[in-house]
This record gives sequence, C-alpha cells and structure tokens, in this order.
Amino acid sequence: MPQYKLTSVDFTSGRTELHDALNLSGAEISINLMPAGVSVPFVHAHKQNEEVYIVLEGKGTLYIDGEELPLKAGDCFRIDPRGERCITAAADSPIRFICVQTKQGSLEGFTMNDGVVSASKASWL
Amino acid sequence: MPQYKLTSVDFTSGRTELHDALNLSGAEISINLMPAGVSVPFVHAHKQNEEVYIVLEGKGTLYIDGEELPLKAGDCFRIDPRGERCITAAADSPIRFICVQTKQGSLEGFTMNDGVVSASKASWL
Repeated sequence: MPQYKLTSVDFTSGRTELHDALNLSGAEISINLMPAGVSVPFVHAHKQNEEVYIVLEGKGTLYIDGEELPLKAGDCFRIDPRGERCITAAADSPIRFICVQTKQGSLEGFTMNDGVVSASKASWL
Repeated sequence: MPQYKLTSVDFTSGRTELHDALNLSGAEISINLMPAGVSVPFVHAHKQNEEVYIVLEGKGTLYIDGEELPLKAGDCFRIDPRGERCITAAADSPIRFICVQTKQGSLEGFTMNDGVVSASKASWL
C-alpha cells in the first residue's frame, strides 16, 4: 500500500472537497471559488470542528457572530466551532479560499515534536 | 472572547506557520514559497500526523518512499505519518504550497454531519 494519495484540482472550478478524494482522516479541506456577488447561502456553526480559512485571491466579507469584516488575499482566520459564520464574495470581485475543518483540540504534537528526520535521501539531496 | 482570530500573511515570504498565529488546536498549517532549485534539506516522516499538501503555483518534485513524482499547480496529496517525504522546487521554477498537519484518525464528523445551519442572517442574506 503506498503511503500517499495524489489528486489534481482545477482551481477555476467552484468547489473541490479533498476528504474523500484523498482518503483524509484528520481534516476535511475544500478549495473554493465564489464569483463576484455570490455568498454561501446561510450562516452556519459547527458541533466539534474548528475551521481555518485562507484567502488566496480576491475580496469579500466575513460575517462572524454579528460582526462583518472585509476580506482580502492573504487573510487567514480561525473560527471556533460555535462561531456563527458566513462568507460572501465582494459585489465587484470573486473570492478564492481554502477551508480546513479539523476536530477542535485534536492536535497533540506538530513539526519539531511530531516530525522525524529520516536517513533516506532524495536524488537531489 | 471573540470566537475567531485573523491574521494577514504575505504570500511572497518564505514560510508562514499559522498554529501559533491563530491559536489553532486541530492543525498546523504552513504557507510556503521555495525559490527555484531550493529543497527542504532532509527527508522526514511523522509520528502521529497525516500531512496534506496543496500546490498553489510553480513546479517541483515530491520524493516519497523512494519514488519521485513531478508536482505542478493544482496537485493535492495526502501523506501518511510513516511516509518518508521531501519536496524540492524545480531547477527553473519556484513552488508555492500549503501544508496541513493533523493527527491521523482524529476527524469524527465534517460538513453535513458536523455543520449546523443558524437562524442568524448576514446583512447580505
């Protein structure tokens, strides 16, 4: 069994979900392109999951618990499960973003305390 | 306490890590730009964490357990904890990618079975 799975995504399509495409077990990740003037059609919260959004391109607005914040490329934000959220593209700009859903509190270690350097060498090392 | 945290990232900087910047509890997420010819300087694996990579721009090569695979914008892949991996930018192209680290097996529900539609309305709904 290979220890990886790869798929290729068309970033110009509306929404691609990676959980099933990559058999993920720690996250759902979606890659989203919303045209100018288009909104997620409802406000939503979560039961267990923390969400992280990364705005790759464009402009829009985040509704979060009654506040409304302008969004631009480079903005990255965490929303706790109970946060009531909605994203819209700006009237005059699409917005492209990645959303990462994980179980709140699930990460134990990372990077320096979860990574292990290997003695294997890639051909270019 | 607000139920969100926001930061703004310069996508042209080398590497930005979001865990501490956003007080994440379910993932470490890094946004990476490696110049042409530059490689992560070692092969590594993980103890507990699954990684997902999303190639945003450019070209490179993935080393995974002795295989070497070409990478291009739009490629998304999962690597299991024990997979021995290394990424290099191509000799003639930078590579820009996002890496998401989560604990393997930690996600319980997502989207339809974790999301809850709210009665709240954003101003544009």
